[in-house]
Amino acid sequence: MKLTFITTNKHKFTEVKAVLRNYGVEIEQVVMEYPEDKEKEMAEVAAESAKHLSKKLNKPVITEDTGLYFKAYNNFPGALPKFLFKGVGFEGIFKLLRGKDKKAYFKTVMAYCEPDEESVLFEAEMHGEIAAKVVLSKADAMPYDHIFIPDGHKKAIVQMSMEEKNSFSQRGQAARKLGEYLRNKK
Amino acid sequence: MKLTFITTNKHKFTEVKAVLRNYGVEIEQVVMEYPEDKEKEMAEVAAESAKHLSKKLNKPVITEDTGLYFKAYNNFPGALPKFLFKGVGFEGIFKLLRGKDKKAYFKTVMAYCEPDEESVLFEAEMHGEIAAKVVLSKADAMPYDHIFIPDGHKKAIVQMSMEEKNSFSQRGQAARKLGEYLRNKK
Repeated sequence: MKLTFITTNKHKFTEVKAVLRNYGVEIEQVVMEYPEDKEKEMAEVAAESAKHLSKKLNKPVITEDTGLYFKAYNNFPGALPKFLFKGVGFEGIFKLLRGKDKKAYFKTVMAYCEPDEESVLFEAEMHGEIAAKVVLSKADAMPYDHIFIPDGHKKAIVQMSMEEKNSFSQRGQAARKLGEYLRNKK
Repeated sequence: MKLTFITTNKHKFTEVKAVLRNYGVEIEQVVMEYPEDKEKEMAEVAAESAKHLSKKLNKPVITEDTGLYFKAYNNFPGALPKFLFKGVGFEGIFKLLRGKDKKAYFKTVMAYCEPDEESVLFEAEMHGEIAAKVVLSKADAMPYDHIFIPDGHKKAIVQMSMEEKNSFSQRGQAARKLGEYLRNKK
């Protein structure tokens, strides 16, 4: 079985691919922009997007959206972590959190949809805190991986292998839930 | 002539109403949520929204959208000033700008559309800087009015009358452009 993961983000694709392979599921990446109303609930957007895209491509698709929630700021920036990072960078994020609670969590909503069916959603969270400074690394990683220290760990995500990250990250967990679902579905 | 200004924001309505009255144009407020894709250019969104809504209501409508652009942060938050304020508040904005260039500007795009016509756009900017602290006032004002000092002024907007604000603000300017347009159109 080969499924289509629609994402512009190569890191997300690589992570999900590694997890699903353990369930005998191969995926291909399709890079496609699609409208997401960021004022709606993430789950609703993911469900609608996957449904729309599976119908359009006439094959089963996976989509995902990931939010970031700062405890100190009423769960800002929510569904817009990329918007925040692009705007203020590491420096702005550190400034925002200076003297504030550094706790934050990520939430991923992964949607799987077959043509003319309803989307099935898989959600998971990863809690932790924003580091005091950027953890430098040669790794080609997602921006927040350089500053996020997951609960129960002493290092930033960028200092871990993808396998280690996947073993507890919100995206890894959501992908495993999808893997289980697909296995039981056969 | 009575026009319909579609906005959920009573302050915007009051300001635009005061300007347009000078052109013999009365407006009524209609509170309606409509989808805005904040990743698109503001002008495009305003034009599409006004066109869509004038057709839907079958009457001429005005819409507007206002963005905020911090010089220190690559013009962040752009079309999402409300999102930023709701998330981080005055405290977060001051933290972000600590030790940074305080210059910022507002841009308003106002769209006017008659049913089955194309939208006509009126744009204006107001440049200035973010104050060092919140200027307290009993006035029921928009959040950024408490911290924005326009170029050429020594006080925050909240310390001015609406007439004074309208005389130079980006929204006041855009509304006057619309007023001129409507006067010439008769």
